Amino acid sequence: MVCPYQGNETFGEEDGAGVRGFVKVGAEVEREFTVYFFDTDAGGVAHNLTYLRWIEAVRTDLAEALGWGIGEMVGGVHGCPVLTKTEVEYVKPAKLGDRVRVVSRLGQVGKVRFTVESEVQGAEGQLFCRAKQELVSVDLKTGKAKALREDWRKKHG
Amino acid sequence: MVCPYQGNETFGEEDGAGVRGFVKVGAEVEREFTVYFFDTDAGGVAHNLTYLRWIEAVRTDLAEALGWGIGEMVGGVHGCPVLTKTEVEYVKPAKLGDRVRVVSRLGQVGKVRFTVESEVQGAEGQLFCRAKQELVSVDLKTGKAKALREDWRKKHG
Amino acid sequence: MVCPYQGNETFGEEDGAGVRGFVKVGAEVEREFTVYFFDTDAGGVAHNLTYLRWIEAVRTDLAEALGWGIGEMVGGVHGCPVLTKTEVEYVKPAKLGDRVRVVSRLGQVGKVRFTVESEVQGAEGQLFCRAKQELVSVDLKTGKAKALREDWRKKHG
Amino acid sequence: MVCPYQGNETFGEEDGAGVRGFVKVGAEVEREFTVYFFDTDAGGVAHNLTYLRWIEAVRTDLAEALGWGIGEMVGGVHGCPVLTKTEVEYVKPAKLGDRVRVVSRLGQVGKVRFTVESEVQGAEGQLFCRAKQELVSVDLKTGKAKALREDWRKKHG
Repeated sequence: MVCPYQGNETFGEEDGAGVRGFVKVGAEVEREFTVYFFDTDAGGVAHNLTYLRWIEAVRTDLAEALGWGIGEMVGGVHGCPVLTKTEVEYVKPAKLGDRVRVVSRLGQVGKVRFTVESEVQGAEGQLFCRAKQELVSVDLKTGKAKALREDWRKKHG
Repeated sequence: MVCPYQGNETFGEEDGAGVRGFVKVGAEVEREFTVYFFDTDAGGVAHNLTYLRWIEAVRTDLAEALGWGIGEMVGGVHGCPVLTKTEVEYVKPAKLGDRVRVVSRLGQVGKVRFTVESEVQGAEGQLFCRAKQELVSVDLKTGKAKALREDWRKKHG
Repeated sequence: MVCPYQGNETFGEEDGAGVRGFVKVGAEVEREFTVYFFDTDAGGVAHNLTYLRWIEAVRTDLAEALGWGIGEMVGGVHGCPVLTKTEVEYVKPAKLGDRVRVVSRLGQVGKVRFTVESEVQGAEGQLFCRAKQELVSVDLKTGKAKALREDWRKKHG
Repeated sequence: MVCPYQGNETFGEEDGAGVRGFVKVGAEVEREFTVYFFDTDAGGVAHNLTYLRWIEAVRTDLAEALGWGIGEMVGGVHGCPVLTKTEVEYVKPAKLGDRVRVVSRLGQVGKVRFTVESEVQGAEGQLFCRAKQELVSVDLKTGKAKALREDWRKKHG
């Protein structure tokens, strides 16, 4: 899903160009995946869209770990996190049959916007891919941005 | 496919943060797509990965228009363009059944690296999504970067 | 989308086992696709899910050609066609860069159910894949089967 | 991946039309999945292709449990299992956020061909989808069918 809203709250300028490797602070979730045939392309390695699918799965797990499960997303208590920006760097390719570990961490938390940083790593800890994504909380009924819950922001911001 | 190579040739710092709307110069290709059910998610709009799939299709058409078709990519004359970086902004959602226009344009051309800028637009010209991507030419046999053909660089750089 | 309804109207027993090549009668639509990198897997050929994605696109185009566009599907005049069954045979693989032609034809039309037969062919007319699919018209608001419009059935049944 | 080979070894005629629920005999593997946003479509339920992606993952896990991991598939000792036929019935839709259980079981084992039967079930054991698939062992170097290893057939056939 993508966002029907582009406000003027911005993040990341202080980061300079490029996606930086993340420093472990705050909430973090990880999961392992196998590179199946449907994840690869004719180059014999995971297709670039596959990494973003894995990351979306772990990002959703991270939200759930922070009390913002899919039920809350569509139920309207919280608003639904909607992707507004992705910056992703592909460093090394994961091959068919590889076992990868995807780690996602909550980054900055603003009023309606927050960032998630993710890494896809190999079995020996090598970096395959890293991404920084910006999401906005949206009220699915109105399609408008909805402020993040104050208690949630205080706890995780 | 993603790249097994990260050299030190860099682009884009002069652009500042964020993805800028592109100025029409150089080679450009466009194609239309319908937003089918499989392109959407439970939010009723095109899923964020769908835009990148459309863009990859048009980016490949662009390469072919510039004499670098899939045959040349795997045949080894040119090397195969491999994605190393994506920056994408989702501005407005395309809905189920919408007809979208995807435009891709060759950006900067370096020794082994080049950029492609793309936009996904609606029927009334509204902007749904814009992306800037960096690719590297790779020799599929060795997995190493391969210089872009001199004549191609001169013509399109 | 898949169907929340399994009635007792059945088709196809007279066909015996397996998917037969279709005889051209009734409404038919076709479209061409290129086999892009994201359509392939590490075997260098189109992944088995890719054929079904192409077929769904052309099946949707066929519905539109028969006056049952996506607008009518979600607007509720007609009900929404929902897939209840797929039988697909993979005969020969389409390779990266191939140009394929997908043909879909309306098969049997029942009270709430209808079939669509599709073929994926190569540039020389060779058969890559053929599928027979059964769909049910569903009222998206209630999730229940909804009779096909009488005039539509008379015209196309 | 799909198969470049269609021999005359056939299965399933004795089953009559349709996909029967499977009887538990022989090797069986299962795994759970969450229905994420990217798995759904605008109908709010898992898209029909999603079930086949889940099933392919579990089918691959099943092969590994039977000593036929991805390494053996591409290494050439065993040949690579290539999908030649899918029959799938969609019975009830899995919704966004649902937790599903996918079970795959080895069915018939022939000389070069074998079948796998799979079910996608809900948390309360309800049936969402069932599929029967036929695969052929193929030598990836020659693209030709390759007999299943005699010891493997004896053990699992």
